[in-house]
Amino acid sequence: MSVARIAVVGGDGIGTEVTAQARKVIDAVLPGVDYHEYDLGARLYNRTGEVLPQSVQDELAGHDAILLGAIGDPSVPPGILERGLLLKLRFDFDQYVNLRPSKLWPGTTSPLAGVKPGEIDMVVVREGTEGLYVGAGGVLHQDTPAEIATEESLNTRFGVERVVRDAFARAQRRDRQHVTLVHKTNVLTKAGSLWARTFAAVAAEFPGITTEYQHIDAASMFMVSNPQRFDVVVTDNLFGDILTDIAAAVTGGIGMAASGSVNPERVYPSTFEPVHGSAPDIAGQGIADPAAAILSAALLLEHLGQTDAARRVTEAVAAEVASRAPGAPLRTAEVGDRVASAV
Amino acid sequence: MSVARIAVVGGDGIGTEVTAQARKVIDAVLPGVDYHEYDLGARLYNRTGEVLPQSVQDELAGHDAILLGAIGDPSVPPGILERGLLLKLRFDFDQYVNLRPSKLWPGTTSPLAGVKPGEIDMVVVREGTEGLYVGAGGVLHQDTPAEIATEESLNTRFGVERVVRDAFARAQRRDRQHVTLVHKTNVLTKAGSLWARTFAAVAAEFPGITTEYQHIDAASMFMVSNPQRFDVVVTDNLFGDILTDIAAAVTGGIGMAASGSVNPERVYPSTFEPVHGSAPDIAGQGIADPAAAILSAALLLEHLGQTDAARRVTEAVAAEVASRAPGAPLRTAEVGDRVASAV
Ligand SMILES: CC(C)[C@H](C(=O)O)[C@@H](O)C(=O)O
Ligand SMILES: CC(C)[C@H](C(=O)O)[C@@H](O)C(=O)O
Repeated sequence: MSVARIAVVGGDGIGTEVTAQARKVIDAVLPGVDYHEYDLGARLYNRTGEVLPQSVQDELAGHDAILLGAIGDPSVPPGILERGLLLKLRFDFDQYVNLRPSKLWPGTTSPLAGVKPGEIDMVVVREGTEGLYVGAGGVLHQDTPAEIATEESLNTRFGVERVVRDAFARAQRRDRQHVTLVHKTNVLTKAGSLWARTFAAVAAEFPGITTEYQHIDAASMFMVSNPQRFDVVVTDNLFGDILTDIAAAVTGGIGMAASGSVNPERVYPSTFEPVHGSAPDIAGQGIADPAAAILSAALLLEHLGQTDAARRVTEAVAAEVASRAPGAPLRTAEVGDRVASAV
Repeated sequence: MSVARIAVVGGDGIGTEVTAQARKVIDAVLPGVDYHEYDLGARLYNRTGEVLPQSVQDELAGHDAILLGAIGDPSVPPGILERGLLLKLRFDFDQYVNLRPSKLWPGTTSPLAGVKPGEIDMVVVREGTEGLYVGAGGVLHQDTPAEIATEESLNTRFGVERVVRDAFARAQRRDRQHVTLVHKTNVLTKAGSLWARTFAAVAAEFPGITTEYQHIDAASMFMVSNPQRFDVVVTDNLFGDILTDIAAAVTGGIGMAASGSVNPERVYPSTFEPVHGSAPDIAGQGIADPAAAILSAALLLEHLGQTDAARRVTEAVAAEVASRAPGAPLRTAEVGDRVASAV
């Protein structure tokens, strides 16, 4: 019997190269995983016009987790693969916790002057199934002077409460025990009020945890002027999209940024993927950094309850990155080998 | 006859202190301006429950421009003054160009390592009368498990086209002749499509100007990793709110950040104000930096067609800031005096 069934969607560009290393590391730390590779992304789309065939989605549903590389290629119009695959999985598999840790690792350099490794250590818990991402809205009188276009942000007490509760539960397992709510309550008064009231209600269940509220504009500024202040951040789908990219930028770019689109109850599989894209410019050369993909595998292991394995993988990646000689060329497979042998 | 009628709304906290210096500088560079001071903000609200009495708004409408300090005080619930005054003026006075220049001035330090004064020089042209700021949406079944809250982003071809055209016209008057559109077309497909198609149509009228598109998440990251790349940025109301705060952060914080909420046709008065808030903690001590307020006065002069006066004020502020001894205490009135005598 396998210890876990993992679907691997390498995807486009460097995606398949980095997931191969992540698999290698999982095998080293947790032998006996059952993998199934799925060829989704630009190749399938260009051949068949399909992004995620129903039969494939049904098969994916039978796995414990999905390890994803990257999708996207210049040959496909922007948005099609993102919406048809990434967002579809988030919605159909009820991946309502979009998890994005950001840490300034030893051996990496922040673009912020004077900020040292270890000083930034936060996790953004981004809502993944509501808000402006639901696709509600429309266009009227297109291509005439009378055209209007709308986008609707839909937010439910149910959806907000479950992700806020997840954020507090995570904060409880961390040192600083602090949660920041980010929204724009002074302008988005309806959704903002729902988020603020729900946050206050859940906070009351966690008396040991300190809380704070920031508007998205102020939070974006603090991400640059004082990212050290953040521990757990909980926010809506769109604000989370923006904030996590700023967080990745101040921790040295997306090279180390891992993410999980998580269905905490494990009714459906969760997706784990590096934040970086498919980087078609360097694909096929074996020079892509697999660190973010391997760290995403650590999030996957953690999600499957393999806490010790997750910790060992994270520490091995951190050590490998810290040991890199500045400016030395990087070989994708060698990084994977070094991490695999260290776990 | 006066050369211009300017309404001054000092507002709360340090607001009145910094607008006093801005007035002083305007008087030095352009004698004969007619001022009317309006006492709006927390004091009026706490006394009367009113934020912007109709009679005051009617009087404001008779001015060429509004010079605003800052509003907001801990005694007033968040949102009330912002929506009742700032946003109301933007909407009622059709201030559809929200103008936010960001420059790394000599004498100021970016939190970004290795970025030198002069290297960052951009202006964000933020739409001011549409999008998620219109206040559309609602709450149903409040405080029950069935609660939902919606926010609607409303975008018109009319509204998008006029602000995009303004951005291109501005780019034409700048060195680099470059405009970046920022949106989230891969997720907000309806509004994104309207913005992208309108941008392409207007760009065709300006063949000398180079263009670029970035998603808001990528643009936020570039604001940190490579802010030098931006010249003119045009974007919607909410994305502009976020981007301009990041831009302020990477150019050393909001100390030098000026803004204008502009009705370019001058059918209604435009509002000019520093991006910083009322800073109640340092109010009344005469130590607030009036640089951003004076730079906002320069934007005001520019808007009134006083191009030479605007340039002299901007240069005088830049010189004053560059001459500051690091760590030396700052006196609000002395900064105003120095800039006023230099123009
Ligand atoms: C590709 C895109 C749809 C996606 C998002 O907006 O969520 C990406 O930016 C992300 O952050 O995972
Ligand atoms: C105070 C608030 C309503 C306002 C906004 O969101 O536009 C402010 O953040 C700004 O940028 O001028």
